[in-house]
Formats: sequence, structure tokens, C-alpha cells
Amino acid sequence: MYYVGIDIGGMSIKIGLVSCDGKIINNRAIATNSELGYEDMIKRSADLVFELCRESGIKADSIIGIGVGIPGTADSGTGIATSAVNIGWKNIPVAEEFSKYFDVPIIISNDANCAAYGEQKFGSGAGFNDIVFITLGTGVGSGIILDKKLVQGFACAGAEAGHMVIQIDGELCNCGRCGCWEQYASASALIKQTKIAMQSYPFSKLHSVASKYGIINGRTAFIAAKEGDNVAQTLVDTYIKYVAIGLINLANIIHPESIIIGGGISHEGDLFIKPLQKYMDNNFHASGMYPTVKVVCATLGNDAGIIGAAALVM
Amino acid sequence: MYYVGIDIGGMSIKIGLVSCDGKIINNRAIATNSELGYEDMIKRSADLVFELCRESGIKADSIIGIGVGIPGTADSGTGIATSAVNIGWKNIPVAEEFSKYFDVPIIISNDANCAAYGEQKFGSGAGFNDIVFITLGTGVGSGIILDKKLVQGFACAGAEAGHMVIQIDGELCNCGRCGCWEQYASASALIKQTKIAMQSYPFSKLHSVASKYGIINGRTAFIAAKEGDNVAQTLVDTYIKYVAIGLINLANIIHPESIIIGGGISHEGDLFIKPLQKYMDNNFHASGMYPTVKVVCATLGNDAGIIGAAALVM
Repeated sequence: MYYVGIDIGGMSIKIGLVSCDGKIINNRAIATNSELGYEDMIKRSADLVFELCRESGIKADSIIGIGVGIPGTADSGTGIATSAVNIGWKNIPVAEEFSKYFDVPIIISNDANCAAYGEQKFGSGAGFNDIVFITLGTGVGSGIILDKKLVQGFACAGAEAGHMVIQIDGELCNCGRCGCWEQYASASALIKQTKIAMQSYPFSKLHSVASKYGIINGRTAFIAAKEGDNVAQTLVDTYIKYVAIGLINLANIIHPESIIIGGGISHEGDLFIKPLQKYMDNNFHASGMYPTVKVVCATLGNDAGIIGAAALVM
Repeated sequence: MYYVGIDIGGMSIKIGLVSCDGKIINNRAIATNSELGYEDMIKRSADLVFELCRESGIKADSIIGIGVGIPGTADSGTGIATSAVNIGWKNIPVAEEFSKYFDVPIIISNDANCAAYGEQKFGSGAGFNDIVFITLGTGVGSGIILDKKLVQGFACAGAEAGHMVIQIDGELCNCGRCGCWEQYASASALIKQTKIAMQSYPFSKLHSVASKYGIINGRTAFIAAKEGDNVAQTLVDTYIKYVAIGLINLANIIHPESIIIGGGISHEGDLFIKPLQKYMDNNFHASGMYPTVKVVCATLGNDAGIIGAAALVM
């Protein structure tokens, strides 16, 4: 018995056959090409599923469920992707369209929710009932799992912790509000903060690091800080503080057992996670009286989308 | 069959017999007198329960459950009140002590959680599965109910939305963090904001209102604003904005069907609730695409503590 995990992104659709214990048996990606329409995207995805089965010597009827991660908002109840701006989707009947090719349960959800579910079942959240998953990327995505179940809100529009205001009248966000957490704590925000620092400090090592790697990204400040650059260290310290504010807010509201951090910046490991844990231990509202919230890195990495989507139907 | 709701506060303990449909049959309060010790407090509470039964012609054995609201953190699993600073409690075995007098299920929880539960079952949240209850008082208390169940966190230390930072490096909070929501949106915060405005604007009607009522409280700014005072109107507008920021944060994270507001300031009614609803409709991250979150006043008022505590065991 196998599951299929399908992780739809703006550029590519990642598809994998997943075993009952969360291992990827075979997987491949195709270009999203959303301009060809959702029927075409879903037909090509179905074709790839059958191809992966053939390659792996797995009979198609041993697939017992399909999970689909959507880069936007998705109603798990109706199987409709309500909105996914990057691929031009609005009210697309994803589950219904997939059911033309497969006669098995098909469940869809937001991609951060899928990743949260994957981490809770097979990643660094395994063994916990209550976790919050945060991904620091272009924005700040989040997934909340309480008592092993996804919290999606009454119409599946919840778990958008990136749009929690942490600064009154702060930076303008794409959502229209000012001061949203993702304007301070996303990888994009760190890149913006790095560029501003580079303008103000022409002799900082940020410049040589950026030249060496040919890019300014979320790693630039961390690398320069490791090389002993004070400007970069201040940048990193301030960025970690911004991330911590949102994490502690979520701990105070929900008190999960663990908050799991994904996205490229989580690869900084202890340099990033240890100070976050210290902020948590010192500032959680009931610190000292109650067990603290464990801050850990996501472990499924690039596979989280596929495994998490598959986990939806397990 | 009847339930008992016990609402322990810093000054008084409110106790009521509650019917299965959430009506208070008979109730009375006694002084808390916490300095006499928890055994004494609980014995006097039990005595009052028996007295209320006698008065109402209800046999003590028709009591089938007792709920107790704690002014602090409480572990519903163990029945232990972990911390209630105002009455000097730390790790008090409340359920065990009550069980010396009653052989029925006894459940304890934080008082804001009880009020949330009461509103969801019998107040303005009736008919909703997912609600957030917020009380604007000395601090900002909160209770979260998802799928009709209390969200308390993995060790019952969650649902402290008042300690969500909405201003980086903002006002110092009692919890040790800076910029917590309750430092901007509690009744105490509004009183502080009113006093500061009165110092800056000696000709504002805030002064005459304060003189007339002999007090500066959460109503002062609202009354002066209704009398056409611009300073007071700005105060009220700013205060409502602070409240709205936290409500929208909670809507974005949880997307409940309704957020219910309790505490004295909620008595301002439409003047308070309508602008909050407008903020919500305009700023909820998925506004336009998803049903909005309804902002409503609590309806159980002073009875919420008793009814909510009783609802815990229903």
C-alpha cells in the first residue's frame, strides 16, 4: 500500500510515491506551466504518478490515497483551492479533477499545513501531539497541529501567523496591513535588512561575502557574522530577535510542545536555533512554571512537501 | 440534575447552582479571604453549595458535576491550580480538596477559559464551534475554543493572547516582555492613556467627565467622546485600533467563527464593536475571499464565571 504526495509550487510540481512509514519510494518534478490551465496540470501530474508506479514496479491500485499541497488557501472539506495567486488559481476543484484519474481519497491543503503535518508525523515533530511549524522564506508560512489535527480555521483560512502584526504602523505588508511578522522575520526581510546595512556600512564584510557568492541572500549576514563582522552580527542578532518575538507570541497563545522552523535559514542550525531557544526560555509568559516550548529545525527539508501532502491522507 | 459553577476571584468567590440549559438557579458570593488558606476557602465554598441547595429545595445528590474557575493557571488534567498570584496559590490541589465534600466529577480551569466556554455554550457564541473569547480588564484575558473544545496548550499554559507582542520594544509588561497587547488594549491601558491625555490637554472634556463621575476609568474617554471632545475621540480611536490589531492577529492565526469581547469596555456596545468589525472586515488576511470573523459582545456578563465554570463539567 502506498500514498501519493503532490506538492504544487509556482515553478514545479513535485510528485512522490510514499510508503506507510513516510519514506519516498520514487519521485520526480515537472514544470508547473500554470498558463496551460489546471486540467492540463492535473492530467500531467496523474500521468507522472502512473509513470512513477511503472518505474517502481508498483501496481496503480496499490495507491490508497493522494494528498495535494496548494501554494495558497485550500478548503480541505470541499477539495477546492480557493486562491493561489502565484499560479493564477481561484476556486479550482482540485480534488474533483484528480478524481477523474484516481478512485481513492484525495485531500488538499495549504502547503505549509502539509509541511507541518509531515514534520509532525515523520520529521522533528514526531512524538509530539501539539506543534507549530514555521517556514521562513519569501514570506512566513505556518501550520498548526493540535492533538495531532491540523488547525485550519472554520473556513480553512487560518494558520497565517506571518500576518500577525508585531509592530504598530510598521512596514507595509502585501496583505495590506502594516507591521506583519513576515516583514521582519522572512528570508526576504533579512535580505532587505542586509541591503540596507550594506548601504550604510561600505566597509562591512557583508560586501566581500556578497561578492564572493555573487548574491545577497539569507545566508550573507550569517556568513559575514561568522567571519567576525560586527555589522553582520548586529544584523543577525536583530533578525533573530524579530523571529523570536513571533515564536513567543505563538507559544503564549497556543503553548505547543514544539515549534519547528523550516526554510533555508533554518540550515544555519545551532547558530540560529540556540539563541531562539534562549529567547523562548526567558520570555515565554509562564517560563519557570511550565515546560518550555522546544524550538527545533525541520528535518524533512525539500521532501517535506511530498511527505506532508501524503501524510494528509494517512 | 444540576451543576455547580464556582468562580474564584481575588476579592470574592461566586458560587451558583446551574441547570442543564445554563440557567443560574441560585447563587451567592462569599469573601475570598485567601489569607486563611485554601482548605478554609474550599470548605466555606462547599458549605455555601449545600446552603444554596437547601434554599432551593434541591437535594445535594442531584448535583452531578462541579466546575471551578481559577484566577491564574490551572491544569485541568490533574486538577491542580499551578499559579494564582492574586490569591497566593502555587500548586494547590483544588479538585482533590473539593472531592472531600463531593463525590462527583470536579474540573478546574483558568477563569477566562471558563468564560469562553460559557459564552460558547450559552452566550453569544452559541451555535459556533470555533470562538476566541477576549476580556478587556486589568489585563487582557483570553480563551480559545476550537471544535467546541478548549485549547489550553500541552501543559495548560496557553491562551494567553494578552501577552502577544504587538510593538517591538514597546511598553514594559508585568510578564517581563516589552510591547504586549495588554499594555495597549486592556482597560488599565486605556485608563493610563486617558491620564496621559489629560495631562497634555487641560481643556479637554476628559477633566469634566472625570470630575462628574469622581473617577478616571475605562468609560471616561468614551463619555467625553460622545460629548464631542476631540481629544477623547482620538483616544478612543487609537484604543480601538490597538484592540483591533490583536483581534486581527488572532483571526489570521486561528480564523475562528467569532471573537467575543467581554469586560467593562464591551458595555460601550456598537460604539466599540462596529469599528472593530470594520477593522476586521478590511484587514483580515483573506478578507473578501473568506467569511469574516464576527466580533460580538459577551452576553453572560457577571454570570459568565459561574455559568462557564459549570459548563466545564457538562
